[in-house]
Amino acid sequence: MQDFSLDIASLRRLYLNGQLTPRQLVDALLARPDDGNPVWIHRLSPAELYRYADALAGKDPAALPLYGIPFAIKDNIDLAGAPTTAACPEFAYLPEKSATVVQRLIDAGAIPLGKTNLDQFATGLNGTRSPYGACRNAFDPAYISGGSSSGSAVAVATGQASFSLGTDTAGSGRVPAAFNNIVGHKPTCGWLSTSGVVPACRSLDSVSIFALTAQDAEQVLAVAAGFNESDPYSRPAQGHGFDFGRAQAFRFGVPRADQLQFFGNAEAERLFGEVLARLQALGGQPVEIDFAPFLDAARLLYEGPWVAERYAAIKDFFDSQADRIFPPVRDIIAGASRFSAADAFAGQYRLRALKREADRVWDTIDCLVTPTAGTIYPIAAMQADPIRLNANLGYYTNFMNLLDYAATAVPAGFQADGLPFGITLVAPAHQDGPLLRLAGRMQTAVATPLGATGLPQPESSAISLLPSGQVRVAVVGAHLSGLPLNWQLTQRGGRLVAGTHTAPCYRFYALPDGKRPGLVRVAEGGAAIECEVWELPASEFGSFVAGIPAPLGIGKVELEDGSTVNGFICEGIGITGAVDITGFGGWRAYLRQRDGAGA
Amino acid sequence: MQDFSLDIASLRRLYLNGQLTPRQLVDALLARPDDGNPVWIHRLSPAELYRYADALAGKDPAALPLYGIPFAIKDNIDLAGAPTTAACPEFAYLPEKSATVVQRLIDAGAIPLGKTNLDQFATGLNGTRSPYGACRNAFDPAYISGGSSSGSAVAVATGQASFSLGTDTAGSGRVPAAFNNIVGHKPTCGWLSTSGVVPACRSLDSVSIFALTAQDAEQVLAVAAGFNESDPYSRPAQGHGFDFGRAQAFRFGVPRADQLQFFGNAEAERLFGEVLARLQALGGQPVEIDFAPFLDAARLLYEGPWVAERYAAIKDFFDSQADRIFPPVRDIIAGASRFSAADAFAGQYRLRALKREADRVWDTIDCLVTPTAGTIYPIAAMQADPIRLNANLGYYTNFMNLLDYAATAVPAGFQADGLPFGITLVAPAHQDGPLLRLAGRMQTAVATPLGATGLPQPESSAISLLPSGQVRVAVVGAHLSGLPLNWQLTQRGGRLVAGTHTAPCYRFYALPDGKRPGLVRVAEGGAAIECEVWELPASEFGSFVAGIPAPLGIGKVELEDGSTVNGFICEGIGITGAVDITGFGGWRAYLRQRDGAGA
Repeated sequence: MQDFSLDIASLRRLYLNGQLTPRQLVDALLARPDDGNPVWIHRLSPAELYRYADALAGKDPAALPLYGIPFAIKDNIDLAGAPTTAACPEFAYLPEKSATVVQRLIDAGAIPLGKTNLDQFATGLNGTRSPYGACRNAFDPAYISGGSSSGSAVAVATGQASFSLGTDTAGSGRVPAAFNNIVGHKPTCGWLSTSGVVPACRSLDSVSIFALTAQDAEQVLAVAAGFNESDPYSRPAQGHGFDFGRAQAFRFGVPRADQLQFFGNAEAERLFGEVLARLQALGGQPVEIDFAPFLDAARLLYEGPWVAERYAAIKDFFDSQADRIFPPVRDIIAGASRFSAADAFAGQYRLRALKREADRVWDTIDCLVTPTAGTIYPIAAMQADPIRLNANLGYYTNFMNLLDYAATAVPAGFQADGLPFGITLVAPAHQDGPLLRLAGRMQTAVATPLGATGLPQPESSAISLLPSGQVRVAVVGAHLSGLPLNWQLTQRGGRLVAGTHTAPCYRFYALPDGKRPGLVRVAEGGAAIECEVWELPASEFGSFVAGIPAPLGIGKVELEDGSTVNGFICEGIGITGAVDITGFGGWRAYLRQRDGAGA
Repeated sequence: MQDFSLDIASLRRLYLNGQLTPRQLVDALLARPDDGNPVWIHRLSPAELYRYADALAGKDPAALPLYGIPFAIKDNIDLAGAPTTAACPEFAYLPEKSATVVQRLIDAGAIPLGKTNLDQFATGLNGTRSPYGACRNAFDPAYISGGSSSGSAVAVATGQASFSLGTDTAGSGRVPAAFNNIVGHKPTCGWLSTSGVVPACRSLDSVSIFALTAQDAEQVLAVAAGFNESDPYSRPAQGHGFDFGRAQAFRFGVPRADQLQFFGNAEAERLFGEVLARLQALGGQPVEIDFAPFLDAARLLYEGPWVAERYAAIKDFFDSQADRIFPPVRDIIAGASRFSAADAFAGQYRLRALKREADRVWDTIDCLVTPTAGTIYPIAAMQADPIRLNANLGYYTNFMNLLDYAATAVPAGFQADGLPFGITLVAPAHQDGPLLRLAGRMQTAVATPLGATGLPQPESSAISLLPSGQVRVAVVGAHLSGLPLNWQLTQRGGRLVAGTHTAPCYRFYALPDGKRPGLVRVAEGGAAIECEVWELPASEFGSFVAGIPAPLGIGKVELEDGSTVNGFICEGIGITGAVDITGFGGWRAYLRQRDGAGA
């Protein structure tokens, strides 16, 4: 193996310092011996790889976010010039155009290495359902890799690629991440275009990202995501709500004890308990939730009409060559014929009701935490009982896209037998940023090595690349916690970020109405005034501003740490008849004196 | 007939002035002779009506927005204690609870009169498909009333109710409005809860409102709309975009000439031409659009898998008693069996693509205008050719809910034979307010009498009751039209509302950076400064505010007409080193001088 880590942060440092070139990287990867694990269905030739590397010659590494970063592509996603098989050789076709998401990565400097093995037609969570062979676990070859994105996960875990693309309809982007000790991010449906991807359930499919660290996944996500007007299922990213991933205090939901399933795996149960303690150490407050509507929704995916989407996706092929399809996959897809259009609509009504029920948890928690999978199985056991054991693997994953949530699978330690265990963090759509940031903090805290490479985690730079959609505002008067107008912030989803002071360059006045102060910046003779910094969705900030009566308004306020945030300012004319209360140092102190004096 | 108009504005005036009591209203309605038209399936007894009237005794008319306003309910919507038949006596049941929307109206003071006739199971657009008899047109009993909400429309048109509830899946809330010279508003799906409504296509159904004026419809809508957490298809109202309904200039789309269909009705064609001229007179700029994706979507409703929803809605009844169902309705619903679950999903994929295509028109137009129906038919003709002629009636209506649009049918004049003609205004979801306001201006301009009552339109009070979601902001510097920062407004969907001046109480400064002015309110010695008022979505205003650097900010600015809007203010400290340019009267005048002087 090459003597450097493939994590993006480390590779990027080498490129920026001139210690590595894309051609040298390709050489190092080509020199890697093949371990015989059927990770790849199609590898690019050395000539093709050099062509991608050479295309970067003369380009500025600093200008391309994924300059020279090698990646693997699940073989149900098109790469121009390489066959797409979906793990079914008879289905294969040669795409002329790369999938939208692949092209975005290449345009950002990333180097595609080849197409990876998968459960055929992305139908499975275990990695054994492929005529190209059962992909083996990166830690123990007797065990499953997880699937359906088996090869993509193992390629990253074993240091063959910096990151990889998977797809995730039922859990295919999370289960193999957990089983191979890497991060698997299942983005908000529609952030990554599925144009150029063989559909599994087209209304639910999501392209997913495997990476060695949560920060790498965020970096890839920031490049790969983008609205594609010609893809009817593409959605533009929206700003998220509260950034629990960065917060000192957040609330995480955990299913009721009797709703947790480890299928007899006591080690997984022990490790999950440790995760909960660790999240609390990170500032999380656990909240027990009723997992029933999530489980009910999960069951709809394979027991309900959505299997008909799998049939609709390959209808012509299935109708003419069903015998070429891997048996458990064929049986599942054949199940589509049980369902009428009326059943399809009835299933959608049921899902809609379940989502309304499940969504109620977001009133009391910021994210949900579950095991990614309750247990792991040997390949032999899986092949002996392929439907039931596969269903067990989806216990915590199958509801995700049906309910329109985003999720990040993150490593969470090792069983006594050395196999990895992982958890999944869940939040509503568009909260990918907070999820990945919390996953990053979690990963750093657990301090697991990178995948199966034995290499340590690189230092985190903690730069956020995704749009936050939040604004911060400094309040100095009646909007402070506990004061009469504070509800104007909380009602808009505002969260207190910090209690602090302004820079010492303000005079502070009690306005004549007796209810509000005015903060006035001065060139000299100013003082530091007590304030609170609140964060609220940008989409809510406008109505907050519009509701502020003269002479106050929102401008910029300098804080004691030298930073500048939105904050209350006051027109000069407003000070007429006002009382200078700078000496009190803040509104609360002034109120205490005034109301005390009045008593 | 009673000697007063039942329009809400007129009735309300009588109540507020003490010239009418709810009991007197009930007496007047009971004294009305029955004309034999099968408008009602079930009328409340005099005792029941008096009970509703008496429940209002002692209440303040001013405090209840629909105090004493009589309304009719389509008989697929539950009214507690009255049977719901959906125009199928064998299907009937007696609800204990009123539909959510009915209860909201009663709580607001409205008086339910009874349940109205409809095309059975709301399947039809013509009003003849009922075992209770074919409902006749309010203007000519030989002609169809339109459907499926036939009775509800005719009850309002003939002065038997102030407003009524219909349902609208394919066009049932619009076609009968057009045929009876009243307003039919098809709200944004989900604004009005369908809880307590017999579903037609549950994923598409919308409760609709018939009223004598657009303003009445808006008043009812404001009461009837409300998020219902227990109804999975309920959606909270969002603020709309540009308020084209109130604008001096707006853009309206019209289908390409070869895509307009009048089915041989030259009078309808002539009247539609007049409408276009009238909209231009109201400030509208016509834009020819490609109607093809709308028509393709429309065809999906009856030719695609959505008919399976009609079967799913009454599955048990259909399976056991199909022979009790009105023949054309039975044949349509029986068509559901043609479609598999895979077909249902394939239909949804197709719709999603068509919506993406259709939605592109909103880049170039604010609303779309079409005939509500291209023609009208005699009852005998309709009964002789019930499927084809009914399909013609849906030519302009069937796409509406599939594409998630809101629509208002508004009277637009009379054919030479005295039958009414109507048009429909269309906009994306949540733009109900602008639609109804433009409909109101249109109705006033056409000056048609109220329904078939011969009574003139009441004076419009033009008070908007629906949330706008827009904020106005006065700009004085680089954000003015054509200046360097104007894109910050236009990119956020901002629209110029007015060029005007501030109140004469400001001094105006060129800040030292040379790029921005500062507007400073003063107690004396102020002047009026040139400004522009822009309107933009509140959801976009926050990021606009957050992007403004010190010493500027957003507070309140007084305009020359005495009103106050959001606007740019300037911290006092910002004036240090600034040049007083008040004498120029505005930023443009200052720039002209400065840049002229520099040349």
